[in-house]
Amino acid sequence: MATTYWGYIKVEELLALQDGLDTDDRSLSNDEVLFITVHQIDELWFKLVLRELVMVRDCLAQEPVPEQTLALVARGLRRTALLMRNVAQHFELMETMTTRDYLAFRDKLSPASGFQSAQLREIEILLGLPDSDRIPLGAENSYMKALEDANGRPSPALRRVLARLEDRPRINEALQAWLFRTPIRGSMPDDPGDEAVVRSFVEEYLAAHEREIATNLQLTLSGAANDKDRERLKGRFENEIAGARAFLFAHDLPEAERTRHSRIRAAIVFIESYRELPLLAWPREVLDGIVALEQAFLVFRQRHARMVERVIGRRTGTGGSAGVDYLDQTALRYRVFSELWAVRTLLLRRDALPELTDTVYYEFAGGH
Amino acid sequence: MATTYWGYIKVEELLALQDGLDTDDRSLSNDEVLFITVHQIDELWFKLVLRELVMVRDCLAQEPVPEQTLALVARGLRRTALLMRNVAQHFELMETMTTRDYLAFRDKLSPASGFQSAQLREIEILLGLPDSDRIPLGAENSYMKALEDANGRPSPALRRVLARLEDRPRINEALQAWLFRTPIRGSMPDDPGDEAVVRSFVEEYLAAHEREIATNLQLTLSGAANDKDRERLKGRFENEIAGARAFLFAHDLPEAERTRHSRIRAAIVFIESYRELPLLAWPREVLDGIVALEQAFLVFRQRHARMVERVIGRRTGTGGSAGVDYLDQTALRYRVFSELWAVRTLLLRRDALPELTDTVYYEFAGGH
Amino acid sequence: MATTYWGYIKVEELLALQDGLDTDDRSLSNDEVLFITVHQIDELWFKLVLRELVMVRDCLAQEPVPEQTLALVARGLRRTALLMRNVAQHFELMETMTTRDYLAFRDKLSPASGFQSAQLREIEILLGLPDSDRIPLGAENSYMKALEDANGRPSPALRRVLARLEDRPRINEALQAWLFRTPIRGSMPDDPGDEAVVRSFVEEYLAAHEREIATNLQLTLSGAANDKDRERLKGRFENEIAGARAFLFAHDLPEAERTRHSRIRAAIVFIESYRELPLLAWPREVLDGIVALEQAFLVFRQRHARMVERVIGRRTGTGGSAGVDYLDQTALRYRVFSELWAVRTLLLRRDALPELTDTVYYEFAGGH
Amino acid sequence: MATTYWGYIKVEELLALQDGLDTDDRSLSNDEVLFITVHQIDELWFKLVLRELVMVRDCLAQEPVPEQTLALVARGLRRTALLMRNVAQHFELMETMTTRDYLAFRDKLSPASGFQSAQLREIEILLGLPDSDRIPLGAENSYMKALEDANGRPSPALRRVLARLEDRPRINEALQAWLFRTPIRGSMPDDPGDEAVVRSFVEEYLAAHEREIATNLQLTLSGAANDKDRERLKGRFENEIAGARAFLFAHDLPEAERTRHSRIRAAIVFIESYRELPLLAWPREVLDGIVALEQAFLVFRQRHARMVERVIGRRTGTGGSAGVDYLDQTALRYRVFSELWAVRTLLLRRDALPELTDTVYYEFAGGH
Repeated sequence: MATTYWGYIKVEELLALQDGLDTDDRSLSNDEVLFITVHQIDELWFKLVLRELVMVRDCLAQEPVPEQTLALVARGLRRTALLMRNVAQHFELMETMTTRDYLAFRDKLSPASGFQSAQLREIEILLGLPDSDRIPLGAENSYMKALEDANGRPSPALRRVLARLEDRPRINEALQAWLFRTPIRGSMPDDPGDEAVVRSFVEEYLAAHEREIATNLQLTLSGAANDKDRERLKGRFENEIAGARAFLFAHDLPEAERTRHSRIRAAIVFIESYRELPLLAWPREVLDGIVALEQAFLVFRQRHARMVERVIGRRTGTGGSAGVDYLDQTALRYRVFSELWAVRTLLLRRDALPELTDTVYYEFAGGH
Repeated sequence: MATTYWGYIKVEELLALQDGLDTDDRSLSNDEVLFITVHQIDELWFKLVLRELVMVRDCLAQEPVPEQTLALVARGLRRTALLMRNVAQHFELMETMTTRDYLAFRDKLSPASGFQSAQLREIEILLGLPDSDRIPLGAENSYMKALEDANGRPSPALRRVLARLEDRPRINEALQAWLFRTPIRGSMPDDPGDEAVVRSFVEEYLAAHEREIATNLQLTLSGAANDKDRERLKGRFENEIAGARAFLFAHDLPEAERTRHSRIRAAIVFIESYRELPLLAWPREVLDGIVALEQAFLVFRQRHARMVERVIGRRTGTGGSAGVDYLDQTALRYRVFSELWAVRTLLLRRDALPELTDTVYYEFAGGH
Repeated sequence: MATTYWGYIKVEELLALQDGLDTDDRSLSNDEVLFITVHQIDELWFKLVLRELVMVRDCLAQEPVPEQTLALVARGLRRTALLMRNVAQHFELMETMTTRDYLAFRDKLSPASGFQSAQLREIEILLGLPDSDRIPLGAENSYMKALEDANGRPSPALRRVLARLEDRPRINEALQAWLFRTPIRGSMPDDPGDEAVVRSFVEEYLAAHEREIATNLQLTLSGAANDKDRERLKGRFENEIAGARAFLFAHDLPEAERTRHSRIRAAIVFIESYRELPLLAWPREVLDGIVALEQAFLVFRQRHARMVERVIGRRTGTGGSAGVDYLDQTALRYRVFSELWAVRTLLLRRDALPELTDTVYYEFAGGH
Repeated sequence: MATTYWGYIKVEELLALQDGLDTDDRSLSNDEVLFITVHQIDELWFKLVLRELVMVRDCLAQEPVPEQTLALVARGLRRTALLMRNVAQHFELMETMTTRDYLAFRDKLSPASGFQSAQLREIEILLGLPDSDRIPLGAENSYMKALEDANGRPSPALRRVLARLEDRPRINEALQAWLFRTPIRGSMPDDPGDEAVVRSFVEEYLAAHEREIATNLQLTLSGAANDKDRERLKGRFENEIAGARAFLFAHDLPEAERTRHSRIRAAIVFIESYRELPLLAWPREVLDGIVALEQAFLVFRQRHARMVERVIGRRTGTGGSAGVDYLDQTALRYRVFSELWAVRTLLLRRDALPELTDTVYYEFAGGH
């Protein structure tokens, strides 16, 4: 039978789902139908985000990652960031609802809560947010408890969340494994002498970093108000020097993980620093896509907090949560790709970089 | 039983609808699921637009329209324009799909077509687009024919479209009826001598308009290149003077409708011109909201054309339509609130307006 | 002489200003010219914001505020929020610059800093941010110190900042004065018995609020996990009840200001609650515009922090500041219109409001 | 001397330029200062666009284009498209001005006109818009005439426009030269037998295209209403087949240019079709960037028309132009990269493509 738009898009089934707790949405106010629909649309966007991120993960989980796949990964990341921007735009629509109008139907929702949106939890898990980093919900229960109903029965989504927890590697894990294999100054992890090559790159880089900081300090001191201020600035810059070394040698991690993460961090620095090398152009695009994606989540979380504050203020959430403060905290503290962010603090301008002598490894046959 | 998010939002039912012609969306490409989902989200936005426009219509259809209702109408119009802006933003997401990727599943859709989106037709009807103004679809069939499947069976939505055609008044009709009752220089349609009051206002306004045009002409002539150019400019300005008169006396309409529409058009000019009068502030906000809404539709149509052109070029549409050209034509030619648009061509700056002597009618008790 | 575009817009003068520390922008990189230009454009937007806010202030500073002026105020606030949204969109453009590319010219800027943007300070002052609320800059100096150059010479803008500090009333002051005069249940501040009328409104409102909280508590408890959780929730809701009373009687303020601010806060509640009354429609639009404006500033500040973090990470700023953290703190802590935000926490749904018996005061002659 | 923000950004000089025809902007209305400032900001964006496009041109004009430069080109194109989106967002700000408020100062501008914005002309020239494609301004004068003042004296910008006309190659020229050198099935233009390789690719491609059209036709016919409709559809699809052949053999061009353009068009098809090949990933990104950029210009032009229509309607422009209609026409007819657009009409889904047997040429050493 010939395809129709309404059969393919399932328009009738779709438009029958906005009746909330009622049997017919005609009895609901426009505000409530808007509220229900915006949440549905967010869930649809989240579904697309999940699919796209699984594709990204599957690509990055290959060993080796075929070079041409990176363009696909970069596109997937860009699409995901765009999806999250679309989600963030819905807050403006929610704000067409006044406090009073929202309150007209809010009691019906209790104790339901947006914290019961399982797909957002799935996305966080798939990206690689460890459970230990989560800020407990208001009720001091785990986020999984929120996926049970008031009688302790699991939601249909809870099993998907549980499955997602088992689904490895997560994006951050796959990304780290791929980054670990980055050729640094032409040396691969299994190559003899790799550790020395990497260490020598890192030491040269830290030396360059120290020179830069020294210059910066001189410039900044010229604007300092007094001795106390000068002391404060000196201290801050000394911390930056020490921080760069500690970071690149992974002193923040248990000894057993240091060598591995030291190489990963060196790889990030290497890719960001020498992206003109043909073979590093797509890897750099991937790193940029990851950063843009995590940024899109931060912007989404902060914008979410601003909408909630505007519409209902700082009252207790329907699920009993602390509302606005909780959202603001998650925005500032949830950070999956912390190594990518940390590296930005110690990148150098091009002219200050250690020179790269042998670049043949990273080239391919000429242009047209 | 206590409400849950997944029960209230109907998450499970919703997320089961993206399988297109298959039985499970896991077998579909990310591009196809994106395609399906974006169309579903558009349908959800359209549903909200329809609900909001029905509210606007119901408010405006009252006789008289209680003054405080106008704030509600203005809010509804603003929300609707914002909804349409959200729809227009989806085109960027569609463009993350390349031509080749879209073609991978396009054949499945034939002969389905976006022209089978019944809700957009409903919106056009509710706004007041007359069937006679429609540009025939590629197949030279009516838009209702498109709502039948290949075997001539009506879609479930067709009956809603037919009901919508019966559902009166449409927004444009209600708006005109309300505008017709606008007090012009304090005179209401049923007041004795109203016709003379209105005519005298219009004549004074046209005289002021003529003076403005004369000034404009002098200024523009100063930049003219030569005599031929001067003639051309003179002709253009003379046409503006004649056009303003013809418009305000409704010479474009059958004689029977002229008096009524002449008053409606004078009312639009009056509200736009004297909006500082307290009683005209909300009416002016409503007119602005209507213009913003129709503009949002135009922008949506043109952006739609640009997306189609970018993704599939100018090939024949799945429904057999002429594609891009058709979309561009509808954008330029579909115009429901043509009187509101036409008035903008002959509005005057404040200092050039006929003076309003008695404004007590339009005031209310002082501020705080 | 006839006007030309280039004379009117001053195109040549304008395009000659992007050479930074050089004498010709042809020697600068595209990234640096982008950096300079975006900052210039932000300054231009800020200038428009300042002009618009002065207009808003002048309107609100009238006594009484003529009713029709409120539409003008609402429009000015909307335009300002839109301007700030435009500013916030520039961060995406800045992010097309990579860390390494920005660092290529960053040293030149030291010790200059965006904290030297005087107009943003002027805007904060004009809105009403008290100096005592400011978070000290990294250097522990005042924001005015930042407007001196390294040799302690004042910038040309410093005198404008100083003049702005003298320029009274600020928007928040004018707004409070206007709100204080709001007729509450038809009673004006100077009316005999006004205090009793206001107190009786507040008490009835608090009683209604308490009933709502009790209902909410029951609903939320149904989702509680255990006794400890129930205790926690009870405590939270009791705090809300106590908090509402403390807020509406202004217990957070010195005794001398309580009566005045108690009336102001009651007025905000009154306007937000009974906005269907014709005479309250524009006032409510004004309050909404103020909240939208302050929200636009918060969103701008948070988006600013996200851009800085992405482009340069958490290194010390050119002006010696703590960078990202400082920006995030200002976003969360700078709040000028705190009473408007606080009220949102205790607003009630319409059906729960104390009934308003005599509304004639707030009406005006019928619709059309 | 230490750098200051105000010295580097030239804040004082900048903020002194918004006085239009007056000597002090304090005497101007907020609307007029908004109008002036938005135009200034547009000029600043245009300046950045020009710089970025010159960089893109310089990169593409190399022979050969070093492979790693393409990432730079792609970034430049993305930044330019983003700049144009920023410009297009200003129209919403202009629309905060009502017709009446704009008219209050409009007469002053005559006969100045936005058509005197020389930088937009420069951009069009640099992209490669031929003078012969331009739609004459209302005055039937050339666009260069508009850059003289009323007394025929050239604007300072006219000489830049004239220089730009001499500045070769334009982007379209450089792009075509680069595309012409694309290895097609591993064959370069100078390789022996190249013409046969290209022809054989094109013929195989056209055969595949014909098969796809045949399938599409069958599907579309299933939705046809009657015999007449079927005939119409058959005709349309036959035209597509003939059109594809005519296009790929460049029958629309003079005989002398056909071989060259046939190879260019085959190259576009080749890059778009086989972008998984590592060596084609960045070229495909460049083509996509060009299409996105030209689309951004179209969207800008159409949005411009919508703003003008909303604010002043269809009256004669200050420069004597036909206003809205002129803008709509330029949007639909100005098209620089017409071959890139045309190709989209005949691209094929991946499974329908002629198989590529030897891909070693397009690879480089493995991933990591």
